[in-house]
Formats: sequence, structure tokens, C-alpha cells
Amino acid sequence: MNDTVKYVLDEGRIPKVWYNIAADLPKPVPPVLHPGTRQPIGPDDLAPLFPMELILQEVSTEREIQIPEPVRDVYRQWRPSPLYRARRLEKALQTPARIYYKYEGVSPAGSHKPNTAVAQAFYNKQAGVKRLITETGAGQWGSSLAFAGGVFGLEVLIFMVRVSYDQKPYRRALMETYGARCIASPSTETHSGREILAKRPDHPGSLGIAISEAVEVAAQRDDTKYALGSVLNHVLLHQTVIGQEAIAQFEMANDYPDVIVSCTGGGSNFAGIAFPFLGQQLRGGKKVRVVAVEPAACPSLTRGRYAYDFGDTAHLTPLTKMHTLGSTFTPPGFHAGGLRYHGMAPMVSHLQELGLISATAYHQLACFEAGVTFARAEGIVPAPEANHAVKGAIVEALKCKEEGVSRSILFNLSGHGHFDMQAYIDYFDGKLKDINYDEKELAMALAGLPSVAEPA
Amino acid sequence: MNDTVKYVLDEGRIPKVWYNIAADLPKPVPPVLHPGTRQPIGPDDLAPLFPMELILQEVSTEREIQIPEPVRDVYRQWRPSPLYRARRLEKALQTPARIYYKYEGVSPAGSHKPNTAVAQAFYNKQAGVKRLITETGAGQWGSSLAFAGGVFGLEVLIFMVRVSYDQKPYRRALMETYGARCIASPSTETHSGREILAKRPDHPGSLGIAISEAVEVAAQRDDTKYALGSVLNHVLLHQTVIGQEAIAQFEMANDYPDVIVSCTGGGSNFAGIAFPFLGQQLRGGKKVRVVAVEPAACPSLTRGRYAYDFGDTAHLTPLTKMHTLGSTFTPPGFHAGGLRYHGMAPMVSHLQELGLISATAYHQLACFEAGVTFARAEGIVPAPEANHAVKGAIVEALKCKEEGVSRSILFNLSGHGHFDMQAYIDYFDGKLKDINYDEKELAMALAGLPSVAEPA
Repeated sequence: MNDTVKYVLDEGRIPKVWYNIAADLPKPVPPVLHPGTRQPIGPDDLAPLFPMELILQEVSTEREIQIPEPVRDVYRQWRPSPLYRARRLEKALQTPARIYYKYEGVSPAGSHKPNTAVAQAFYNKQAGVKRLITETGAGQWGSSLAFAGGVFGLEVLIFMVRVSYDQKPYRRALMETYGARCIASPSTETHSGREILAKRPDHPGSLGIAISEAVEVAAQRDDTKYALGSVLNHVLLHQTVIGQEAIAQFEMANDYPDVIVSCTGGGSNFAGIAFPFLGQQLRGGKKVRVVAVEPAACPSLTRGRYAYDFGDTAHLTPLTKMHTLGSTFTPPGFHAGGLRYHGMAPMVSHLQELGLISATAYHQLACFEAGVTFARAEGIVPAPEANHAVKGAIVEALKCKEEGVSRSILFNLSGHGHFDMQAYIDYFDGKLKDINYDEKELAMALAGLPSVAEPA
Repeated sequence: MNDTVKYVLDEGRIPKVWYNIAADLPKPVPPVLHPGTRQPIGPDDLAPLFPMELILQEVSTEREIQIPEPVRDVYRQWRPSPLYRARRLEKALQTPARIYYKYEGVSPAGSHKPNTAVAQAFYNKQAGVKRLITETGAGQWGSSLAFAGGVFGLEVLIFMVRVSYDQKPYRRALMETYGARCIASPSTETHSGREILAKRPDHPGSLGIAISEAVEVAAQRDDTKYALGSVLNHVLLHQTVIGQEAIAQFEMANDYPDVIVSCTGGGSNFAGIAFPFLGQQLRGGKKVRVVAVEPAACPSLTRGRYAYDFGDTAHLTPLTKMHTLGSTFTPPGFHAGGLRYHGMAPMVSHLQELGLISATAYHQLACFEAGVTFARAEGIVPAPEANHAVKGAIVEALKCKEEGVSRSILFNLSGHGHFDMQAYIDYFDGKLKDINYDEKELAMALAGLPSVAEPA
């Protein structure tokens, strides 16, 4: 067999629908609650923040939701994304495993995020919105929304967590090249930002704070809406193009994954690759083991509590039931900024409760080591977030070697690390350390969870 | 018509041969001369530096040279590369022109350079070579050879021009991630390096110096060879996969380029896109206007002399007839490091003398402005080198608008700018300036050209 095995679909095979796993669940996901009344919210409650089409997708239980042609048209720039068999990595590991990876770094912004950014920009444009506000950590989401805003002619304003704003000027430059405006958060432009800066003028920021700022600004003007890059149902939905394409590519390969591995921050790239396969299983198809890999320094699925919590620090968002470390928990500053979020997508949390997926956590040194092994074999340098998926896949491949069995392993290489080379330099220089969260802080954040029961 | 128009060839359409324009020339390119005897060199003279297969390609006049299957196999990872119709750019410019770009940034190292790096690594491996030595400016070539060395299990040592070594740590990190060793040049590891450092300990380096160092080290050990990323015939040859694919993609588009635009440093990406089209013209096919775009701060084709000169500063290389600014000319430190070379590929120079191509030069501010226009429309951030091609294409497109005619413009987007975001930051901050070379220095360098006549 050749060293390079790439499964390419022609552009007619870009999925025509998004797959909604809500249609196939044995039990529905718990309802979203209003932050004031603590009663289930309706579509109108979300209308100040999102266009109605996205709100309807958020609550839909239809299995298939049509992808508008203008969205498929933009997807066409980089989709269908390739599925690779990692032959050179298999050789390097001397494993009998068959390792496959779906590569989402081929998008203009370099990650899976444009899959939803383009859809969100389209629906907002269609609803007459002029301006989108969002937040970003490491900048993968912000740069993707900046790209999508440029395509559809929307102004984009991004609150970027200050520590990343200062440490990652290149992602910021990418957003500005696309024409977006980028503000360090906490900022003086919002009530929530000013309140935090009054207490601590050098606050490094967090995703929870940046969400509070973005939501506050978005709610102020009728021509302005909010956009979120993960966690919500409609965001996960848009990512399912990944897994649907992978199913078709595995047919080409005449194979099927025994195990699917993906990293989880908010849960969207994980959902994108895993949900279409889980849907087949739920409808009576082949069973597949699905492993979520999270950072040991921010382990919502493996150490969080499954409870109702806020999505942001200022408690402006609705309450959702999810695995959470508590909305006041500040994750330590490890390099996979895209995974530094206190909560997990409610839908992903629900699947873990149903026993359909499992989760594991690794520290960053082991993930960078895996990433360098992968880069030397396959030539692609993964983003620090994606290194968690690489690590998970290598662990599975080495298990195959130990057991002397050949399993088929699929992982999602959600993005490249071209804007993260400082992290690799730090790794090579021995400056990168494993970071633990503060156990006391976690205990306090969990103790501070709102006491809200799931409505009967 | 849709906004995104992408022409994709299936992997069976990766060219099976490289196209050698020497076969179709009305007059052969002037011979390469020995630096000592100043007589035409033979294959044996080059044997200390290159494996025989590459030397034979260097002097071949066969029209088609078979691409070895193991090389095509590695190409398969990212080839055939896409050809895009830049519909969103056309709209932004309000031009009737049909703008197409071939995108070579899809390779693992992010530029066209792996097309030849993979081939060179393969032939060296086949010849029993253990170690490859090269030089790099901005790092696109170095990272590509590091990638290819990794694939074929060769050790790679890279002399990187010191100013880039210090200013572009991320490209260096990429080379190290691939497992290569990277040394700032001038270094203390070579005679030529030590000599220069003795005169000026803080010397910023140049490509000419780095070549001297690499050639010196390569000649010392039998298991070690030298590799060059541009200029030489065999390097240009390997790049012709680009234009061959583009010809097939234009057939899909039912169109043909009226004008082809590409940036030139050493000339390899230009040759890659243009030679196969020029070959068709030379064999009686449709005429195409071909424009080489070079940096105004290092304008070998537009301001250099067509004369025999050395490829390096220490005069260790053979003499080739080319457009040169003089091997002692140090180009000023503008951002497109890959275009900072005193000479032009002898084959490209020869074509200009034959009137088959024309050249134009732009300063960097105009090129960055063009690059940002392109990025906002198309979502891809070009490398500073490629911005010269973008600028040239936009100039042609605006001419169409003025004249009210729709011409078909093809340009080569030779690489992405993910590792060059500091240049964009400087551009946005107003810190980027147009830089002129020193007229006196150029005059001196030209006056210092060796007086060598072309053998009769």
C-alpha cells in the first residue's frame, strides 16, 4: 500500500443537510432555563441575541436540517475536507492499528470553526443584521467569524481574552486582516468589563467574562446580534458536516471506525465528527466507541459536576444542564486556549450521562509530545487543542500494538498550529510545564453552583 | 454563477512527468561554467554536491521526465492543488476580468517548495545519501526540505540567514518540529562563515553567504549532499506540476489564460506555473502573456545585468549566465525574504532575453495592500512573496476594468502567510515602509561582476 492514502469526495458530496442528533436520542436533553424565572425559555427569550432561524435550529428535533445553498457555496472553498490514513504515523508507532484522521485545518481560518461561522453569518445577514459580536480565547473562533463576516458583508466585533490578546498577536492580526475589530477583554466598553477592571485592573480575562461582554453589547442594538462558536445545539449541528463526510469516506476506504477520538473544549468539533456516527448507532447501526479527550487542567467531563449552570461569569446567559467546573472557575493558562472553558456542551454532557460516550484527560506535555510525533510523520503541525485528539489516538494505537489487534481509529484533526508555534518553541526549550488547576478554587466554584433542579 | 468556483482534479491527474522547457527552446540556455577553469562543466563537476539523477535532470533536453512513483505518492498528500476562480475578488474590484489562482499553500509546509524538496530528498535517499545541507531565507524552503527529509528519513541541516533566524522564530520552530537542525548564518561552523564574522561579528547574513556555508559543509562528507530550493534547472523542472495541473483545470473551466502572473525571487514558482503554458505556445499553441513580478528592492530582471555571475558570496558555486545584481549585492531587509536574492534562474533569464516573458517590479506597501484586499475577499492570507503576484494580478484586472474588456488572468498563489503575520501587523501599524536599495552599492556590485564571456 502507498504511504499516502487520502480519501477525497467531489464537491457534489458536500452534505446537503446538517444532522440533528436530538431526533435519535432515547431521552431528550434537559431544557434551557431563564436566568431570572428559572423556567424553561422559549424562542422569544433568545430573540435579542440570535436570529430566529438559529433559535429554531437550537430547539429543533428534526433529524435533518437543510443547508442553505449560499452556505454550501462558501463551504465549497475547502470542503469536502480530506480524510487521511496516517500510514507514516502507523509505521512510526509500529502499530497494527489503522489510524485515520479527518483534517479540518484546510479551511481559510485553519480550523473547523468556519463550518458554523459561515452558517451563522448567513442567517444573520438574511435576518437583516448588520453587526455580529462574539468572544474568542486563542482566536480560532474569532478569526473564523471575521472570515465569515467578510464573506457576507457583516461588521464583526470580537472580545478577545486579554491574556491571549497579549500573547497571540498573530491570531489577532488575522482577524484584523479579515477586517474585524478586536478588543481585549475585560474592556472598558461594557458594564461587566468595567466592574471587573475596577476590582482588578490587570485582570487576565477569561472566556466567561468575554461572553458577558459580548452578550451585553449585542443586546443593546437591534441591528446587532451575538454569535457563539461552540456549546449550543445549533453550533454543534453545523459541525456535523465533518462526520457525514467521514462516513462517506469510510465507505470509500471499505472500513468503519472502531473508535472515534476528538478533543473537547466546548464540544463542537467532537460533536461534528462523532454525532453522525452515533446517530447511525442509535438507529441500529454498528456500535462505535467514542472518546472525548479534554485537558487535565480544565476537565469538565471528567471532574466537573452535571448540573445547571451559567455560560458566563456575569450570569447574563440562560442556565443549561451540563458538566461544569462552575462559572466562577478560572482555568489555568495552558496553551490550548480553545479548551479553556468551564462548561461542556449540554448535548455532549447528556450523551455522557446516557453512557454513549466516554471521556479522558491529558496534561499538555504529553499532548505536545504526541503532536511532534504526528508532525514528523505526517507533515502537519496540529494546533495545541488538536494535540489532545492526537494523543488520544496514539494511546489507542499503542493499545492495539500491546494487544496485537488491528482496530480502526478515527480522530478529528480540528486545526493546524501555524499560529501556535510559540507553544512548540516553549515545548522544545523545556519551558512548557504541566499545569494543575487549584483544587480549592474548583471546590469553591462547584460549591457556588446555582441550586436549580431539572424541571419535572 | 456561484461565489466559490474551485476546479479539483482527482489524484489520478497528478502529473506523471515533469515538463522540461529546454526541449522546446528556439535557442539553448548558455552553458554553466566551472568557477576555476571558466570552461563548461560536466556532470562529474557537480557530483560532490548533487546525486547523479538530479545532475542529469539539470542538463537534460528531454521534454518529459518521469516522476518516480514514491514522489507522486508523497505529492498525493496535497496534490493536485486547487485552482480557484476568485469571484469574490472580482466583485470587490468590480472588474470584468476573470481572475484565477492556483493555490500552492495547501502543502504541509505551506508553499510550492515541497514539490521539489520531496523529489530532491527521494533522489538523494536513493543514492545512499544520509544528510542534506541547505540554506534558507525566510524559511519556506528550509521548512519544506525539513518536511521532505522527515518523510524519507534523511538528516537535514539548514543555514538560515541570521536576520530571518532572529526575526522569524516560527519558521525555525517549524523546521525543528520536522526534526531538522537550523543554524544562524554566518556561523562559526564554516570557513566562509568565520571569515565574514571576523570582519563583522554582527553580520545580518544573506542568501549568498548561507549558500557558501551550505556548499562548503556539503562538500566535506561523502554521505552528505547539498540541496537548492530555486534557480537551478532541475528545481524549476520539479515545479512544473503546478502549470501542468493548471492546464487541465483550465480545460475543466473551458477557458485559457490570456495572461499569467507570478512572483520571482529565484524563479521556481514562476517557472512552475508558466513553463507548461509557454511550452504549449512554443509548440504552436495559443500565445500567452507572461509577467514576472519582482520586488522593487531586489529587481534582478528589471534592473540587473544579464551576465555570468556566481550564485554565492564566497564564489564557491559554478558561474551561470543570469540577470544579476552582482553576487556582492546585499538586498535591503524587506519582508518578502524569499525574494531577496541577487540573481535570477538562468532559464528564466534566458526566456526574458528571448522575449518570451516580461518583468515588472513593485514596492512592498503596494503588495501588502493588494494582499489585504485579496485576504478580505477570498479568505486566504498570502505570504509576502505571493503578495507580489496578487499585486500583479490586480493591476491586470484593473486594466481590464479601464479598457472594459474581460481577460482571463491566472496567478500563482505560491504560499500562505501564516508565519508572516508580523509583517501584516507592521503594515496595519504603519511601520512598514518601502525600502530602496542603495544605488551606489548596486553600481559597485555590477562593476564587480566577473568578466566572463559566453563560450562560442
